[in-house]
Amino acid sequence: MLMKHVVMNSQLPLLYCAKNCMRLASSPVFRRQRFLIRSLGGSIDYHTNCSSGKMQSVEVDAERVIREITPVLDRSRHKGQAGNIAVIGGCREYTGAPYFAAISALKIGADLSHVFCTKDAAPVIKSYSSELIVHPVLEESYSVREEDKKNISSKVLAEVGKWLERFDCLVIGPGLGRDPFLLDCVSEIIRHARKSNIPIVIDGDGLFLVTNHLELVSGYALAVLTPNVNEYKRLVQKVLSSEVNNEDPVEQVLTLSKQIGGVTILRKGKSDLISDGDTVKSVSIYGSPRRCGGQGDILSGSVAVFLSWARQHIEAAGPDSYLSSKNPAVLGSIAGSAMMRKAASLAFSNKKRSTVTGDIIECLGKSLEDICPAGSCSL
Amino acid sequence: MLMKHVVMNSQLPLLYCAKNCMRLASSPVFRRQRFLIRSLGGSIDYHTNCSSGKMQSVEVDAERVIREITPVLDRSRHKGQAGNIAVIGGCREYTGAPYFAAISALKIGADLSHVFCTKDAAPVIKSYSSELIVHPVLEESYSVREEDKKNISSKVLAEVGKWLERFDCLVIGPGLGRDPFLLDCVSEIIRHARKSNIPIVIDGDGLFLVTNHLELVSGYALAVLTPNVNEYKRLVQKVLSSEVNNEDPVEQVLTLSKQIGGVTILRKGKSDLISDGDTVKSVSIYGSPRRCGGQGDILSGSVAVFLSWARQHIEAAGPDSYLSSKNPAVLGSIAGSAMMRKAASLAFSNKKRSTVTGDIIECLGKSLEDICPAGSCSL
Repeated sequence: MLMKHVVMNSQLPLLYCAKNCMRLASSPVFRRQRFLIRSLGGSIDYHTNCSSGKMQSVEVDAERVIREITPVLDRSRHKGQAGNIAVIGGCREYTGAPYFAAISALKIGADLSHVFCTKDAAPVIKSYSSELIVHPVLEESYSVREEDKKNISSKVLAEVGKWLERFDCLVIGPGLGRDPFLLDCVSEIIRHARKSNIPIVIDGDGLFLVTNHLELVSGYALAVLTPNVNEYKRLVQKVLSSEVNNEDPVEQVLTLSKQIGGVTILRKGKSDLISDGDTVKSVSIYGSPRRCGGQGDILSGSVAVFLSWARQHIEAAGPDSYLSSKNPAVLGSIAGSAMMRKAASLAFSNKKRSTVTGDIIECLGKSLEDICPAGSCSL
Repeated sequence: MLMKHVVMNSQLPLLYCAKNCMRLASSPVFRRQRFLIRSLGGSIDYHTNCSSGKMQSVEVDAERVIREITPVLDRSRHKGQAGNIAVIGGCREYTGAPYFAAISALKIGADLSHVFCTKDAAPVIKSYSSELIVHPVLEESYSVREEDKKNISSKVLAEVGKWLERFDCLVIGPGLGRDPFLLDCVSEIIRHARKSNIPIVIDGDGLFLVTNHLELVSGYALAVLTPNVNEYKRLVQKVLSSEVNNEDPVEQVLTLSKQIGGVTILRKGKSDLISDGDTVKSVSIYGSPRRCGGQGDILSGSVAVFLSWARQHIEAAGPDSYLSSKNPAVLGSIAGSAMMRKAASLAFSNKKRSTVTGDIIECLGKSLEDICPAGSCSL
C-alpha cells in the first residue's frame, strides 16, 4: 500500500504579498512564474484581491473531492483495503479524545481502527467501544524509574513498530498529554513512520510536541497539522517569529507551510484554511456554532481516512494521470474538513445547544452517504 | 473572563417580620428604607402579605431570565467561550453524582466539562461518557499515610491549581463523600477559587463541609448553596440556631443568606426559593413529582453554566448598564432551577414512574430549545 509521493512545491519566490496587483499581474517575472508552475503541473489556488491587496484563498468544491477519493465498495474487497488507521494518544487524564478520533475513522468507512495509549487509559477506551483495537503500550514518567527509561522506551517502540507498516495513516496527539518521557517515545514513533512513508495527522498534544521539535515533520509531505486558534498561534510564533495575522490569513498559512517544508496545515476556524505551501484552499460549507470539545478529534480521524483514500486513488491512477501532481494530504484535509463540518451541522440541526461530540460522530455516516451514496456500490 | 462583581446588599435593619403590615407600610422608617434601597439600585423582591403578616417571595419570570443570559451562538466563537465548568466530586463510593452534574453542564451548552475525583472513581466516571475530562487527583484517608498527608495535600492542590484559572465555575460536592482528609483538600480548593474570583456552586457533601466551616463561603458573593430539605435544616440550625420555619420560609431564607454575608441560597422544594440576602425570588413553574436521586446534581451543573453566562452577560453590558447591579449568582440560580424543573417535567411526561435522572438529562436540550431557540443563532 506504500507509495512514494512527490509534491510539486514551487521553489520560486513568493509574490503574493504584493500590494499593487495590477502591477503584479503585468510583471514579466510573475507571468513567467505562473507559466512555469503550470508547466510543472502545479497550481496557484489563491489570488490577490485588487481592492485590498490581500491574498484570498479559493473555496474548493469539497463535495467533489469527497466523491472523487472515496473508494467504490464492492464485494471482492477484503478487510483492511478501506483503511487501517491508528491513533497514538490516550493517557491517565485523557481518554475521550483518542476514542473520538478512532471511532470517527471507523464511522467514515475505515476497516480497522487502533489506539496506542497508556496502560491506565486502555481499559477506559476499550469500554467506550468494542469496535476499537486498543493497545496499552505507552508509559508516562510517573510509572517509570529513571534507570529503566531507555529499556522501556525501546520496548514501547518495538511494540508499536511491529504494527506500524500495516497502517495507512497515523493520528498523533489526541489525548496524548504532555509527559516528557511519553513525548520522547512518540517522537521516535514519528521518525519511524516517516522513514516508512506512513502519513501522519498531528493534532492536540502532538502539535505541542512538533511545535517544539519542528524537525520531526519539517519537509515531510505526508504530514498534516490541524491546529485550532491557540495551537496555530503557538505555531506561528515559533516558526515565523510573529503574531497571527488575521488581516491576511491566506498569505500567512502559505508562508507557514512553506517554512515547514511543505507540510500540510489545516487551520481550523470559521472557514478552514488548508495549505501545503503551494496552494491555499478554504472550506466554508456547512458547520455549526457549537464549540464543544472533541470536534478536533473527529476531524483528525476523518482526515486520516480520506488522506489514505486519496493516496490510494492517486496511486491507482498511475504516474501519467493528472492526479499524480495532486497532494493526498491536501485532498484528505479538504474532505475531512467538509465531512466534519457537515456532520456537525446535521447534529446541530437535531440537538441544538445540547449537541455533544458523540452526536456529531453519529452523523458522519449520513453525511458521507448524502454526498457519496454507497448504494451505488457494485454488489 | 474574570470580573469583579458588586452586589448591592442593603445594610438596613430588616423589617419584614412586622406583624402589622398596615402600620408597617405607613411607617416613615420603612418608607425611607424602601426609598434608600431603590436609590442605591437594590430591590426588594418580596412583600408582606397583609392578612397573614408573612413575607412572600415574588415568582420570577424565569424563562425571561434564561432568554436574557443565554449567549447567542455564532460561528466566530471558539472552544471554551460558552463555558468551561469543573465538578469537584466523585470518590470510591459515589460516581454517578459528579457525572450527572458534569454532563448536565455540557448538555445545557458549556463547551468543556471536567471532573476532579479520586483515583478509584476516575475510570468509572470516564466510562460513563467520553465527553468529560476526568482528572484522578483527589485522595481519601485510607490511601494516605499520616506522615504523607501534607505532601499529598500539596500535590492535589498543585494539580487542581494549574487548571483552576481556566474555569468559569466550579461545582463542589456531588459525590464528594465525607472523608476528612479529602474535605481538607477541598477546603483549600475553595479558598483558592475564592481568591481567584471563580464562582462556586456547592451541593451535597460540599454543603456538609461548608455548614461546618461557614468561613469558607461567608461573604463570597459568587457562591451558591443549593440545599435540599435536610441540608437546609442543618444549615438553619448551624447559622440561625433555630429550626426550619415553614410558616415564613421567605423571611428565613433571606435572613439565612444575609447571615452568611450575601451568599446565594437556592432552597430546593415544591417551589425553589432563591435569596442573596437582598432579594427573595421563587421558581414554581414546571416540575415533576418523581424524586429519584441525582436531580440535585443536574441542578448544580445547570446553575454553574447559567451563572457563568449571566456573569459574561453582565460584564459585556458594562458598568453603566442597568445590569451592573444584578447578581449573576441569583440569575444563574433562577435559570438553573427553571431549566431543571422543565426537563424533569418533560421526562416525567414521557417516562412517568420509571423516570430516572438520565432521562431528565436527555430532556435538558429540548427544554432550553423550547425557551430559547438556538435556531435564531447567527450562522
